[in-house]
Amino acid sequence: MNLEKLFKPKSIAVVGVSKKNPLSPGRIVLLKNEFEMDVKVYGIYPNGGEVEGVALYERLDKLPEIPDLLVIAVGPDDTLGYIQECADLGIPASVIIGGGFAEVGGEGVKRQKKLEEIAFDNDIAVLGPNCLGVYAPPTVDTIFLPTERITRPPKGSVALISQSGGFLVDQFFVKFAERNIGVSTAVSIGNRAVVDESMLLEYFSKVDKETSNIAFYLEGFKEGKAKKFAQLAKESDDTVIVFYGGKTKEGKIATKSHTASLAGNYNIIYNALRQNYVIQPHSERELLTCLKVYDVLSHRRNPFGKNVVTFGNVVIVSGSGGHGVIASDMLRKYGLNAVQLTEKEKDELKSLTSPTAREIASFNNPIDLTGSVLDTDIENVVRFLSDIERIECIILLILPYPPNISFQVGRRIANVVLTKRKPLVCFMPYIPKYSLIIDSLELANIPVFHSIKETVQAVSALKERTRIRNIKQGNVFWEQRS
Amino acid sequence: MNLEKLFKPKSIAVVGVSKKNPLSPGRIVLLKNEFEMDVKVYGIYPNGGEVEGVALYERLDKLPEIPDLLVIAVGPDDTLGYIQECADLGIPASVIIGGGFAEVGGEGVKRQKKLEEIAFDNDIAVLGPNCLGVYAPPTVDTIFLPTERITRPPKGSVALISQSGGFLVDQFFVKFAERNIGVSTAVSIGNRAVVDESMLLEYFSKVDKETSNIAFYLEGFKEGKAKKFAQLAKESDDTVIVFYGGKTKEGKIATKSHTASLAGNYNIIYNALRQNYVIQPHSERELLTCLKVYDVLSHRRNPFGKNVVTFGNVVIVSGSGGHGVIASDMLRKYGLNAVQLTEKEKDELKSLTSPTAREIASFNNPIDLTGSVLDTDIENVVRFLSDIERIECIILLILPYPPNISFQVGRRIANVVLTKRKPLVCFMPYIPKYSLIIDSLELANIPVFHSIKETVQAVSALKERTRIRNIKQGNVFWEQRS
Repeated sequence: MNLEKLFKPKSIAVVGVSKKNPLSPGRIVLLKNEFEMDVKVYGIYPNGGEVEGVALYERLDKLPEIPDLLVIAVGPDDTLGYIQECADLGIPASVIIGGGFAEVGGEGVKRQKKLEEIAFDNDIAVLGPNCLGVYAPPTVDTIFLPTERITRPPKGSVALISQSGGFLVDQFFVKFAERNIGVSTAVSIGNRAVVDESMLLEYFSKVDKETSNIAFYLEGFKEGKAKKFAQLAKESDDTVIVFYGGKTKEGKIATKSHTASLAGNYNIIYNALRQNYVIQPHSERELLTCLKVYDVLSHRRNPFGKNVVTFGNVVIVSGSGGHGVIASDMLRKYGLNAVQLTEKEKDELKSLTSPTAREIASFNNPIDLTGSVLDTDIENVVRFLSDIERIECIILLILPYPPNISFQVGRRIANVVLTKRKPLVCFMPYIPKYSLIIDSLELANIPVFHSIKETVQAVSALKERTRIRNIKQGNVFWEQRS
Repeated sequence: MNLEKLFKPKSIAVVGVSKKNPLSPGRIVLLKNEFEMDVKVYGIYPNGGEVEGVALYERLDKLPEIPDLLVIAVGPDDTLGYIQECADLGIPASVIIGGGFAEVGGEGVKRQKKLEEIAFDNDIAVLGPNCLGVYAPPTVDTIFLPTERITRPPKGSVALISQSGGFLVDQFFVKFAERNIGVSTAVSIGNRAVVDESMLLEYFSKVDKETSNIAFYLEGFKEGKAKKFAQLAKESDDTVIVFYGGKTKEGKIATKSHTASLAGNYNIIYNALRQNYVIQPHSERELLTCLKVYDVLSHRRNPFGKNVVTFGNVVIVSGSGGHGVIASDMLRKYGLNAVQLTEKEKDELKSLTSPTAREIASFNNPIDLTGSVLDTDIENVVRFLSDIERIECIILLILPYPPNISFQVGRRIANVVLTKRKPLVCFMPYIPKYSLIIDSLELANIPVFHSIKETVQAVSALKERTRIRNIKQGNVFWEQRS
């Protein structure tokens, strides 16, 4: 089944456009694509006319061309009629927004069977029913939330496929934007009657060139498809990430009412996916953290070049002793090791530091430069550590409060990283008035996190990605992550 | 030792004021207190004069009065001289900002011994050395960071005492402000040569009336004082919270360079504190989460009245099935139970919901009102659940994106909570354009969190506080937290 028409249609048609209700899903989709996206759009309305200046056509067979994609936002029985029309007219793809299928049981199950029959018999790539559809900029957007309700993330390498529309919106359109995670496509799969997670994994792995990180929120695999998914993940050159809902007894009960998924035994699933090189964050935040660093690595301007984190050997540099202690406390849990500095290295570090800070700073790992730190101290220390080969990654905890830290500190650090290419991940508290510092780091693609935990998690995610890359490429010198 | 002069001095004097360097700690403290705080301030400078219009005095014995507090921001040897002057003149309290004492070893250790001798012999409440001192609004502020570098949290019930100045500033002045956690006092104890964590616990428990939540960041207890601390915690009517740095081998190594603390065996400390009814968050975020809910409970306008969470029996209400699943997955880990709703209750809930949402919503626990939810659906469901006695707390996951959710939804929920007084904790993603909704909840003291995990943690923190309250009051019907 060819999914390209779902994500890169040249033209789309929308049925279920209301002339009276500006919040009707069909109308929102019609106008969003007309005014905001790069695609030819046709609206369908029984007696034609127009809405906000956009002409409406009476029937699908009256359109000036056969559209690539039909967005259906009507009741369940009419939906089946429209899918039959797709078959009759040769429309190759459809997004079904409405519900009333398998998720309601009884008649709905029969309806969904019928839908599947028509779609598979006629090779129509149907997304849904009961979904938000796709957001594939700059071409198409079937997410029927009003534009002013959401924000939009920057372009990048991450595709997110979700069994929950709410999760998709909250992550993709809000948290990805907030965290500056670059994205390619969002897909809400709903009941996944036809197009399912495995087909999407295959499409994004093999066809879509923009995506190199494929992330899923799943509450279970489509029946009989778990093995196929695992096999595709194993073969994929992209990084595959699965965040799983329904891990516990309580969660499983919840998935049953939500997507009627049988979440299965999480431990078995976890191990099977891990063997097949799927990255599995344990929380929403960890998902965001790993997508953020993986997007950076996929970037043309990846600041770390070919340098990778293989063993998790890190050094922590902080402007606050307490922050250094808190970060150190997390290292082992995340499979990381504190590199021991030699006495010679400590002496050199000391000599590179300004006289006031030097006297009270500590040059063990964590290196605590104290509140007397200057911009140049951070710069010099990071440059020196970048040349020590056994350090794979620098965890830099920046506190912007000391009086001698200036707004230039971000650029100073960025310049060192862009020259030395040593992996470096930053913690800096998010405070609007200091956002200039954060911006100058992020403009250089250096990932900045706003909690110590996420910063440590990010380095762990870098290590996990190297492990998987190494196995996929047949290199087996890595250490097992604890 | 009387600590009141440290926190509520009528007058203070500052030594170590630079006329040339506007960023010198002494000068910042002098001018901050002169211009921003409600205290009489005197600056000391060898040949008098003035700085930014504030008169300077040549010596302490030339001041028009004996100040209650002396802030010392000079080198270590001069510091000892000034402490001797405190003794001679009868100045009852001092904050020593500078370092060069026990933390540098050798001569420093001797200096600190001498300092302790003078202070204890003359009953001078000395804070530090090597600390930021105190912020006790509206009276006194010795935190020598320029005002424009930090933000300030609202007044409230939380005192934070920290062995790390950096941690104190990052939490108290930034994250507390950001999360709207109400505070009473911040204390940086530095080397805690004289005033230590136990003395402060006693002061805030027994003397200070504004504080009812006493939180600590510690990297170890002062030698021989751990038992005393535990005993005081047990006797305290306030809620005592300890966040511990140096839990792991890596963390312990870090504390040694930072505060020379011997962190000790964390498991032993954890259990001893738990037996003595100290609340111990596992992460920075968990610390913030529990302080936020405890501050609400301490508030005159506590929206939950006398209702408490004893067994952790909750119901989850969500506008997104995925969010409901993710929250459900966390319940057990945090010692919470999903309340089973009866068929009758589900039917009633269904009948209270608008026709469109009703058809696709799910009324199990989690209740999923879907993206078709209206403001009134949330209001009606929350009101109905509030009357079910076996539900102790409602976890409400609000997604503001659905087209029919309006900015009034916050007030609607607040009105129900303020009438019914059922504990309710909200998740809502933080997006500036929706902050009006968050504000209307927080104005009613309903805690709002921006991650699902923190929301679940908050309910767990409410349960933990009830457990401790019950033991302290001799009620022993609680269930053990898993």
